[in-house]
Amino acid sequence: MNINSNYQQLKAQYLFKCISDRAEAYLAAHPDQRLLRMGVGDVTRPLPHAIVEAMQQAAGELGNPDTFRGYGPEEGYEWLRQCIIDNEYTPRGITLDTDEVFIGEGAGSDLGNLSELFASDNRVAILDPTYPAYTDSNLMAGRDITFLPCVAENDFVPELPGQKADIIYLCFPNNPTGIVLTHEQLRRWVDYARQNHSIIIFDAAYESFIRQPGIPHSIYEIEGAKEVAIEVRSFSKSAGFTAVRCGFTVVPKATGLQAMWLRRQCTKYNGTSYVAQRAAMATYTPEGRAGIRANLDFYLGTARLIKDRLHEMGYQAYGGENAPYIWCRAPYGWDSWTFFDHLLRECQTLCTPGAGFGPSGEGYVRFSAFSRREDCRLALERIKNL
Amino acid sequence: MNINSNYQQLKAQYLFKCISDRAEAYLAAHPDQRLLRMGVGDVTRPLPHAIVEAMQQAAGELGNPDTFRGYGPEEGYEWLRQCIIDNEYTPRGITLDTDEVFIGEGAGSDLGNLSELFASDNRVAILDPTYPAYTDSNLMAGRDITFLPCVAENDFVPELPGQKADIIYLCFPNNPTGIVLTHEQLRRWVDYARQNHSIIIFDAAYESFIRQPGIPHSIYEIEGAKEVAIEVRSFSKSAGFTAVRCGFTVVPKATGLQAMWLRRQCTKYNGTSYVAQRAAMATYTPEGRAGIRANLDFYLGTARLIKDRLHEMGYQAYGGENAPYIWCRAPYGWDSWTFFDHLLRECQTLCTPGAGFGPSGEGYVRFSAFSRREDCRLALERIKNL
Repeated sequence: MNINSNYQQLKAQYLFKCISDRAEAYLAAHPDQRLLRMGVGDVTRPLPHAIVEAMQQAAGELGNPDTFRGYGPEEGYEWLRQCIIDNEYTPRGITLDTDEVFIGEGAGSDLGNLSELFASDNRVAILDPTYPAYTDSNLMAGRDITFLPCVAENDFVPELPGQKADIIYLCFPNNPTGIVLTHEQLRRWVDYARQNHSIIIFDAAYESFIRQPGIPHSIYEIEGAKEVAIEVRSFSKSAGFTAVRCGFTVVPKATGLQAMWLRRQCTKYNGTSYVAQRAAMATYTPEGRAGIRANLDFYLGTARLIKDRLHEMGYQAYGGENAPYIWCRAPYGWDSWTFFDHLLRECQTLCTPGAGFGPSGEGYVRFSAFSRREDCRLALERIKNL
Repeated sequence: MNINSNYQQLKAQYLFKCISDRAEAYLAAHPDQRLLRMGVGDVTRPLPHAIVEAMQQAAGELGNPDTFRGYGPEEGYEWLRQCIIDNEYTPRGITLDTDEVFIGEGAGSDLGNLSELFASDNRVAILDPTYPAYTDSNLMAGRDITFLPCVAENDFVPELPGQKADIIYLCFPNNPTGIVLTHEQLRRWVDYARQNHSIIIFDAAYESFIRQPGIPHSIYEIEGAKEVAIEVRSFSKSAGFTAVRCGFTVVPKATGLQAMWLRRQCTKYNGTSYVAQRAAMATYTPEGRAGIRANLDFYLGTARLIKDRLHEMGYQAYGGENAPYIWCRAPYGWDSWTFFDHLLRECQTLCTPGAGFGPSGEGYVRFSAFSRREDCRLALERIKNL
C-alpha cells in the first residue's frame, strides 16, 4: 500500500494543535499559572435559552416511539434549508432552490471536502494570510497554490491573481485580518471568475459580524455569482455552535457542481445530527435571534475594547469592526512566534501567531474577540506594562 | 476549472437515494397506499431514556456560562475514547492507546474519508456484494477495484484476492449478507495483509449483533492485526444513533497511519458534537447498556421472524443471526430490481435490491430487521399470498 505522498508537503502539525501544545507545555512547567486565552477563534458565550430548549426537545423526541426518527436526508431537512433561504437569502434579493442548500456538521468539513470535486491539476489561489485549512486541504490533493498577499500596503485587500487561477478561496469578513470587501471589490472577483472559468469558494463564516451598511453579506449579492461561487456558512460563530456542529453550504445549480456535491455527500456523509438541525432552526425564532444578536454585540464590544487599547498603546491593529478578529503587528519588528512566545511567557496570554496563516502573516498576531472580556482586560493590562 | 473526472465513473445516483426516489414515485401515483419498509438499514426503536437524559443534560450545559464549552478536540474527548477502550477492547484482551481512537460523526464519513490517506494508484479489493460507499469513494479517487465475490457457492465467505490488493475493505458482520467470519477465517486476511503490505479497512458497524460465541468482534482479536488494520465502528446500529451521529475509528500507530489520520481530521474536521459524545458515553452506563441490549434483542427477534417465514415459504434466505440483515434470493430466477419492483407493486413492500451492493448481489434482495415488526408481519403475509 502506498500512502498519499502529498501529506509530506504539510507541516507536521496543524496550526491550532501546535499552539495548544505550546500552551500545555507552558502550563506543565508553570502549574500555578492561568493562561489568558486571546487566541483560538472559539466562542465562549452560552447558547440562548430558546436554542437549548429546542435541542432538549429534539433529544426527547428521539426517546419516544411516536416521534423517533433515524437518518435524515444527507443534504439536511427541507424545513431547515427553506428556513435558511427565507432568512439569509430572500431578504437580500437572492433566489435559491432548497436543493442548492446543503446542511452539514460544520464549515470546516465542507471547506475541506469541497476540494474533492476538482481535478488535482487545477491551480488554486488562496488569500495570504488566511485560515490554514484551505492551503492544507489543497496540499493534500497535490495542487499548486498561489498566495495572494493581503498586507498593510494594500489595506489587506488582495489583488487579482497574475497567473490564471482555477479555484479561488475567499474569506470575508476575513479570518485573520478582520477586513471586509465592498460590493465593488467583491464584484471584481466574480467578474474574474466568470471570465476565467474559475470557481470561487466563498467562506462567509463571519458574515453575522458585519455591521457596516453596504457591505455584501453573501457573494450572491453580486450579479452572476451563482454561476461561479460556492458559499460556505456556519452557525459556529454566528450562533455559538462550535460544540453543537451545524453549518451549510450553497452550491447553485448554475455552477454545474450541485449534482456532484449531492453525490459526494450521499456517498460519504449520512446527514447532520437531528438535534443540531433543530438547534439551527431555533436560531431563527424571535427568542433565538435576540439571544444570538446579544452575543454577537457583546463580542463586537470586546473587539472594540481590544482594538482601542492596542491603539492607545501604539500598536498597529486592524479589523475588529465587522469581524471578531483584531490583526496586530508585532512590536520591535519581531516575527509572529517571537511575539507569541513573549506574550505567553511574560503576560501568560495566548494569541495566534500570524505566520501560521501564511507567509504574509509573518510579523503579525491575531487577537480574538471571542475571548472572555475579563481575560482581555487583564491581558491588555499586562501587555501595557510589558 | 476542471472537475474531478472520476465522478463520471459513478452511477448517477447513490443506491439508497435511488430506492427512495422509486418509493416516492410509487406513493405519488398511489396516494392511498402505505409502504411497508423492509429495506433501508435505519433503526426504528427509540433511544433508551438514559441516553436521552444525557443529551438533554449536555444541551443544558451549553446554555450555562459556567458549563458552556465550544470546540472539543478534533479526535474526540479523552473521556469517551478511554471509555470505548475500557468497554470495547480491554475485555477482549486488546490494548490500545487513547490517541489511536478517533471519535467521528459516523462510520459513513470515516469510511469515505479514510480513502484520502492512500495514493490513487493502489489496488483496492472490495467484497461483492457490499455497502456501496466503499466502491463509490474509491471510484471517486480513481482507483482500480477488484471485487471479491461472496456467493452461495462459497457460503458468502470471500476468497483471498488472486491479484495483489493494497487496500482491502472487509465488513463483518456483513452488510448485506449478514454473514460473520470465524477467528480462523479472519486470520487468513490479517496474514495476507501482513505478507503483502496491504491495509485492511474493517467495517465493524454491526459488531453488536454478534451472538454466536467464538466469533471475533474486533479485528484486533487477531494477532498482528494492529499492524495492518483500521477498524471503523458506529453507534448508529448498536445504539440507534442514526439521527444522533456518533461513531469511532481505530487507527493503531503500528499501521504507520495514525499521524496522517490525525492530520487529516485536524484539517478537515472540527470534532464531534458534544451532545452526541455525551450520548455515546451514556451507552456504557448500566441503564444505557440495558436499553440498548433490549433494542438489539428485539431487532434480532425480528430477523428471526423474517428468516423463518421466508424459509417456510421456500425462499433461500441467509444471515439474520449475527446481523440485522436477511439476504434472500429472488424467486423464479428474477433479477434484484424485478423482485424489488414486484414487491413494491404487489405487496407495497420496500426491500433493497441486491444488485445495488455489487455484481454478485444480482438475483438477491436484502430485508432489514430494523423494520417495524408489524410491518414485517404484514409484508410477509402479503409475500406469502403472492
